[in-house]
Amino acid sequence: MQIDRRKFMAGVVATGVLPAAATIPVPARAAAPPVGKQAPGFYRFKVGDFEVTTLFDGNVKVADPNKFIVNKTPEEISVALDAAAIPRDNMRNPFVPVVVNTGKNLVLIDTGFGDNGPPGVGGLMGNMAAAGIDPKNIDTVLITHFHGDHISGIRAKAGTANYPNAEVIVATSEYKFWTDEGEASRAAQVWKGGFAGVKRVFDPIAKDVKRAEYGNEVVPGITMIDSRGHSPGHASYLVTSGTGKLMVLGDVTNNPAIFARNPEFQLWADMIPDLALTNRRKLLDMASADKIRVVGYHYVFPSTGYFVKQGKGYEFAPAAWEGTL
Amino acid sequence: MQIDRRKFMAGVVATGVLPAAATIPVPARAAAPPVGKQAPGFYRFKVGDFEVTTLFDGNVKVADPNKFIVNKTPEEISVALDAAAIPRDNMRNPFVPVVVNTGKNLVLIDTGFGDNGPPGVGGLMGNMAAAGIDPKNIDTVLITHFHGDHISGIRAKAGTANYPNAEVIVATSEYKFWTDEGEASRAAQVWKGGFAGVKRVFDPIAKDVKRAEYGNEVVPGITMIDSRGHSPGHASYLVTSGTGKLMVLGDVTNNPAIFARNPEFQLWADMIPDLALTNRRKLLDMASADKIRVVGYHYVFPSTGYFVKQGKGYEFAPAAWEGTL
Repeated sequence: MQIDRRKFMAGVVATGVLPAAATIPVPARAAAPPVGKQAPGFYRFKVGDFEVTTLFDGNVKVADPNKFIVNKTPEEISVALDAAAIPRDNMRNPFVPVVVNTGKNLVLIDTGFGDNGPPGVGGLMGNMAAAGIDPKNIDTVLITHFHGDHISGIRAKAGTANYPNAEVIVATSEYKFWTDEGEASRAAQVWKGGFAGVKRVFDPIAKDVKRAEYGNEVVPGITMIDSRGHSPGHASYLVTSGTGKLMVLGDVTNNPAIFARNPEFQLWADMIPDLALTNRRKLLDMASADKIRVVGYHYVFPSTGYFVKQGKGYEFAPAAWEGTL
Repeated sequence: MQIDRRKFMAGVVATGVLPAAATIPVPARAAAPPVGKQAPGFYRFKVGDFEVTTLFDGNVKVADPNKFIVNKTPEEISVALDAAAIPRDNMRNPFVPVVVNTGKNLVLIDTGFGDNGPPGVGGLMGNMAAAGIDPKNIDTVLITHFHGDHISGIRAKAGTANYPNAEVIVATSEYKFWTDEGEASRAAQVWKGGFAGVKRVFDPIAKDVKRAEYGNEVVPGITMIDSRGHSPGHASYLVTSGTGKLMVLGDVTNNPAIFARNPEFQLWADMIPDLALTNRRKLLDMASADKIRVVGYHYVFPSTGYFVKQGKGYEFAPAAWEGTL
């Protein structure tokens, strides 16, 4: 015997066993589970004929903003953080290498931490894969400077080269400073690990590392620019294709909402602060006057936009996100 | 007989047939072709226990900034554009719907153009797929207002519902205005198409569209907020989970670098300009005072961050990009 479900339910309701609302059962739809996965961290745009990709290696929390900025009072730092909507207890420092495909060369500028970093970083290789870039096809690695977040990814912890077919090009002055035994022995405690990291990365490839001078066109279309100060031999790179121009600034400023808006704010890692400030102003003056697109290594991802001179500082304006190239 | 290539090359050089540099041939490596593909346009973050995803539908070029902003002189507009590094001839207007997964509901706020838009838009469905969200699992569509870039994607050109299992919830006042035959007949020419679009989208589902009042919790954890002015019944949405809060502003301001920095700038599409300005100030005052994270429909993707009150306006500060949730 078949039971007529509708009549059965009506009877149940009539007898008061179930409330009336239960008479119109709706199809049970389980809520979709959260996806839990972030978008890949890459973003792409053209500079003339060149294809540029910014790549997210990850970020870390700044332990103490009052030690991150070393020449201002906690009150001055609070004002600057508030103006940038950065919470004191969760200031983030991201790491953003760049790939430039010139059509003739596939160039990586800075390498992130690789597998040598703290928790929260080391995403570069995964994001390169998502971006369709094979590390084996990178033919040139350009370095802005020798701090660990820029060079550690050249070589995995196990010793293998992450970009096995790439020529590594660095500024002569930077190489000289960090491989000088005298500098190493005189270094402040905070930089001892940096010197050790340089040894780890560069000793095995010392004879193959190409040193270049500021002003050199290190790859056709890419010129090394003097931006010393953050480190003794810091280099930025000017990418030019047709009328397209891009300045890959490296660490000329850290987060622009703090350090470009307030150029005199001194980052703990600015090794020659006065020279860093001079070259910060020089490059941001150039970028703003000529409306040159920039990429910065520690800018909120996708880390590309323009500078506008404003009062004593420079405002960063993110470039429009485009869905196509 | 085997030819010793090294000796042969040396001989060639010695005889002057080839220049010396040719004696060390490097392996020919074809440059990797450009990838030519943009990253998917989605970005994800948590608000309390809720999973929020912003999704890029695309963008268009503003034909003439001097007609986009209707109450300022070309000189005043130029000053504002320059301050935001927006070129006069390439001001972009992006479109960014949002999905909120509350764990119980999967909610889409605004629907982009679907296949009813101009070139450069209609990317929402593709980006939802990339984000792992199935349109069939969307159980609620919330609408901020009835302008075409927000509602056209409810229904494909061919008539099919893009979110076939979703209840559509709108503000009573917005629905009333756009479905009023008197309003339609009195409408300025520029809005005639808008009324036609509303008919196309809503007529077939009129009896199923749920009307809600400002202050209603339309979905558990999501409250409709009065932000009239941009349109007669514009609604924003406050998302709350635990101590987490997010304001999905819709069109309270267009691009914040212009319209939040200069709240009195009037967008051509602000239908009741004085009320729009009043509610713009009300909501941005609230967002900045309480440091509430926001999403804006026409902000540079990923379109999420915080407002800081500054002088007569509000500065938008993008939230840090996180590689994980």
